[in-house]
Amino acid sequence: MRVLLTLSYDGTDFCGYQVQPNGRSVEQVLNDAIFALTGERVKSVSSGRTDSGVHAYAQTVHFDTNSTIPAKNFALALNPLLPSDVKVLKSKKVSGDFHARYGAKSKTYRYSFYVSQTENPMFSRYKSLIKQMPNVEKMKECCKVIEGTHDFKCFMASGSSVKDTTRTVYSVKITKRGSFLDITVKGNGFLYNMVRIIAGTLLAVGENKLLSGDVARMIETGDRPVQAKTAEARGLALIEVKY
Amino acid sequence: MRVLLTLSYDGTDFCGYQVQPNGRSVEQVLNDAIFALTGERVKSVSSGRTDSGVHAYAQTVHFDTNSTIPAKNFALALNPLLPSDVKVLKSKKVSGDFHARYGAKSKTYRYSFYVSQTENPMFSRYKSLIKQMPNVEKMKECCKVIEGTHDFKCFMASGSSVKDTTRTVYSVKITKRGSFLDITVKGNGFLYNMVRIIAGTLLAVGENKLLSGDVARMIETGDRPVQAKTAEARGLALIEVKY
Repeated sequence: MRVLLTLSYDGTDFCGYQVQPNGRSVEQVLNDAIFALTGERVKSVSSGRTDSGVHAYAQTVHFDTNSTIPAKNFALALNPLLPSDVKVLKSKKVSGDFHARYGAKSKTYRYSFYVSQTENPMFSRYKSLIKQMPNVEKMKECCKVIEGTHDFKCFMASGSSVKDTTRTVYSVKITKRGSFLDITVKGNGFLYNMVRIIAGTLLAVGENKLLSGDVARMIETGDRPVQAKTAEARGLALIEVKY
Repeated sequence: MRVLLTLSYDGTDFCGYQVQPNGRSVEQVLNDAIFALTGERVKSVSSGRTDSGVHAYAQTVHFDTNSTIPAKNFALALNPLLPSDVKVLKSKKVSGDFHARYGAKSKTYRYSFYVSQTENPMFSRYKSLIKQMPNVEKMKECCKVIEGTHDFKCFMASGSSVKDTTRTVYSVKITKRGSFLDITVKGNGFLYNMVRIIAGTLLAVGENKLLSGDVARMIETGDRPVQAKTAEARGLALIEVKY
């Protein structure tokens, strides 16, 4: 049977989702727990990798098992075998042709900034520090430039080998609450580092280092100006995957 | 000169605020940073101790120094010498008779519950897990029983040697947002474990294990029923100290 898990993890102490030769990955920790429970070395498939330091409120992962444990009980059974920074929120049986990555209709990420002169340990694991509140109205205006179906080549980290760089961004939303500023991005899929580059680009717009027109041109030409930086990993979290 | 620091710390990996022979304490880490900066072994005085696992958004600490560093620069100068789980948010000069503990007019703590069937690593450092949302109206009703000047002996951990157990609780507020339930308690001072016992008692009321009348009787008689448990440390944070 094929089982779908919804995972939450604090990415701080992981080298990322994907197995690495010399690192503690979410995938490895999960596969080890499944092995401890079922005795099977499964190949689990996630909705997508997350980088080192990136968090997930609801990552989705499927795997095949011959275990007789009812699918919905996997959450309860795996959690005692998992470390405190990764837990299974729920588990269910899915059809044999369900695929956690290829079947995803949309993914939502949130990037979180904390505005302060000083790091605050109560926020620093999950939010990126910026010293001044940027111009939120300018950022909101620029969201409309990013939304839609575009070639997002310029929002992809260099070194990525992906050929088709066209993606649809359904929405980009900015939310300000006190000293916190969140950017929530929903799309049909994302290129490597795309959300972190969107966050860094919108921040540059809010800091008057770029104009919305520069971002429109960036998408048109595929050239990324130096001001459009990749925001750091800790501020990013995968919020939802829809099928 | 006497310097007042406002500290934030994630209490997870500390044995508590106070120096312990075999543990990593906030006080020790802070004193070591002050020594590294000034060459002085100071005796710092906090507004009060916090237990192992208890967090602070704004703990206050004073100390005396002969350093010529301007008081307001201590925050910036100490932070690179402190680990990532404790930082100085601000520093200022205070008069020689200012006292971080005895001068405190009020202290505010927040106790945070997360309601879910499963631990979520993104919340588990700072919120205590409960499986069902308690009856918030009953809890709110009981807040009025706790507010006021009372002998809070029954809200003190056994083993504490404090003689005068009368305290004034200015307010107890319950806030529910989705799956999160916060109890915010403001008082002129708190006995050992008092806020955690208030949180555990209010939870028992919300779970129909105690009535408001039982809590009133608990305060009158000084006897704590077994249902009024001490809520776990990780859900508690010191929010504010006023002078």
